[in-house]
Amino acid sequence: MGPGPSDVSPRVLAALARPTIGHLDPLFVSLMDDIKLLLQYAFQTKNELTLPVSAPGSAGMEACFVNLLSPGDTAIVCQNGVFGGRMRENVERCGATAIMVEDEWGSPVDPEKVQKALRDHPQASVLAFVHAETSTGTRSDAATLCKLAKEHDALVIMDTVTSLGGIELKVDEWGADAVYSGSQKCLSCVPGISPVTFSPKAVERIQARTHKVQSWFLDMQLVMGYWGGSSKRAYHHTAPVNAMYALHETLVMLEEEGLENAIARHHRNHLALVAGLEAMGLSMAVDEAWRLPQLNLVCIPEGVDDAAVRTRLLRDFDLEIGAGLGALAGKTWRIGLMGHASRERNVILCLNALETALHAEGHNVESGAALRAAEDFYKSTSN
Amino acid sequence: MGPGPSDVSPRVLAALARPTIGHLDPLFVSLMDDIKLLLQYAFQTKNELTLPVSAPGSAGMEACFVNLLSPGDTAIVCQNGVFGGRMRENVERCGATAIMVEDEWGSPVDPEKVQKALRDHPQASVLAFVHAETSTGTRSDAATLCKLAKEHDALVIMDTVTSLGGIELKVDEWGADAVYSGSQKCLSCVPGISPVTFSPKAVERIQARTHKVQSWFLDMQLVMGYWGGSSKRAYHHTAPVNAMYALHETLVMLEEEGLENAIARHHRNHLALVAGLEAMGLSMAVDEAWRLPQLNLVCIPEGVDDAAVRTRLLRDFDLEIGAGLGALAGKTWRIGLMGHASRERNVILCLNALETALHAEGHNVESGAALRAAEDFYKSTSN
Repeated sequence: MGPGPSDVSPRVLAALARPTIGHLDPLFVSLMDDIKLLLQYAFQTKNELTLPVSAPGSAGMEACFVNLLSPGDTAIVCQNGVFGGRMRENVERCGATAIMVEDEWGSPVDPEKVQKALRDHPQASVLAFVHAETSTGTRSDAATLCKLAKEHDALVIMDTVTSLGGIELKVDEWGADAVYSGSQKCLSCVPGISPVTFSPKAVERIQARTHKVQSWFLDMQLVMGYWGGSSKRAYHHTAPVNAMYALHETLVMLEEEGLENAIARHHRNHLALVAGLEAMGLSMAVDEAWRLPQLNLVCIPEGVDDAAVRTRLLRDFDLEIGAGLGALAGKTWRIGLMGHASRERNVILCLNALETALHAEGHNVESGAALRAAEDFYKSTSN
Repeated sequence: MGPGPSDVSPRVLAALARPTIGHLDPLFVSLMDDIKLLLQYAFQTKNELTLPVSAPGSAGMEACFVNLLSPGDTAIVCQNGVFGGRMRENVERCGATAIMVEDEWGSPVDPEKVQKALRDHPQASVLAFVHAETSTGTRSDAATLCKLAKEHDALVIMDTVTSLGGIELKVDEWGADAVYSGSQKCLSCVPGISPVTFSPKAVERIQARTHKVQSWFLDMQLVMGYWGGSSKRAYHHTAPVNAMYALHETLVMLEEEGLENAIARHHRNHLALVAGLEAMGLSMAVDEAWRLPQLNLVCIPEGVDDAAVRTRLLRDFDLEIGAGLGALAGKTWRIGLMGHASRERNVILCLNALETALHAEGHNVESGAALRAAEDFYKSTSN
């Protein structure tokens, strides 16, 4: 129950362990077609260029930047946590200039600041932001940010590593152009794969490039030859065949549950957790409107030793929760309820374990209040 | 029995499917330490910077080039198959100049040409070559090429994707500086991971860089913070945890067998296959001195339909062999005997299946001659 990797279901692990076949085997090629369709569903997009990059989310991020930026370009980059900073690194390593829009960690990206930056830098060809900041459990208003970018004719690069499959994400409706995610958060697949999707406008810009993409491995023009729509697949690299079995199974499970039901499940378990935490006297660090249901930033009560509590949880309950990062380190915990891990039994386990650990660390908590609040919530919202 | 991915043993698949834990979990960190030691054994190196890149071999290749080259540098690149061409792409995308040394596909890299190129281009800071060309089944004389580079003060980037674990590979003794491999050839792990190792001289050059590595994901200064020797691991990206379980198991199996025994096994099964193929009247396309035991380039007999035979093998025997590439397409097959697939039963299966398919395609082959030759070879060389 940390910030990911989340629990992987036995069904996905079983798919992962199927015998390895060739990356150009007709059976594997048809699995690739399925994965593409299922990813389009998950991203809510019709983008033809939708595929899993054969590497972790950081490589998916890099794929978006190196394909859309050339030396001399300008990108507006929003930072309200760790991953905005990584975006800046990517922009600068492309030989482009990053105009930073900074917000407090734990607050959403401020659309007014973005509006101003777009006005002040009309040459900016890209607006980049993180939809769901894994480092702070904060959502930003992606629809509004995409709209602003469109008005200023900038393409949108959007980080959805933690949002995909956990909260509403509408790539086509919002008009995001290059979107990357990870396999190991709300999809609950094994880590190591980064689903990406590029809009027709992004593809157009890639095809119009005069400067070769600086990464051979992540050059979408080459990757398209293997993952593209044509019946003839050109060898580019050897796909991580077994990880693709797992991703496929994960996406089939998402389709079986239904995207809206999965999002509702994440929301419901989040509310139960919050009810329990508040009954325990703890408070949430992020404003209610911007909280991520899949990643809960909780204030550590005054006088409680952050690391001691986390060590107890791991040692006595086999339960991992995340530490705060940056200015939030030592002041907050990050409790994940992602994908397969977003379940009633995990909420109950976490509340119970946390109450015990806080007691043991000398922090006074009303016994059983948290569990009662969560269980009452579940009862009041059961079908 | 194609050019990879090779068969993965059930033991490795079982390891792959173990429950996913966090990439900073103390248990996972100790697995990382083990992997590093085992990779040092496989590469025959004491290099501190030895680790698995969390992406396929092409990303391992890119990691070597982007870390050692800066814009304006010159690299001598040897090409005698597909992968030398990919190296050139990498050099040029780093803003560096590639001086090409070309040899026939199916011949080894010619050290005299390399010597001349090093003399003619004293500014070259890197010599890059492929130890074992997957596209042609050809070995090059890595020890000699490394020696030449040293004499001209160039660092060596060496592709060992197909050689690691299959033929002699002595990183330290030869003095190669940046070496990458793949998980899915003679290690018989699942595809998607690229073991790399960097010499102290390579690390020195990386640390002396004034131009940031163009890839954030592959920047070894950052990756070192996670995989480095220090007890405190800094988060860089989420490691593909399950693939690491599989890689670990693969490397434990290699250590159990012993590197020299694994190499001897590859050699013995290769000789049995060649005995059978020659008894069938087929001939090998690569000169005996430079043949890879793990990837056998076989001449297709006059008048035999390449694709028809391969289709029969796949359909009737569930057996995949590789097609020839480039100028060798339609003229050769590539038969892999890699890692877990380098076994007597596979040699027998392949010879039997090939004989049947050639018969069916109207090519006259003496019945049973191939099997007798291979079995005689195995008997004459058994302990």
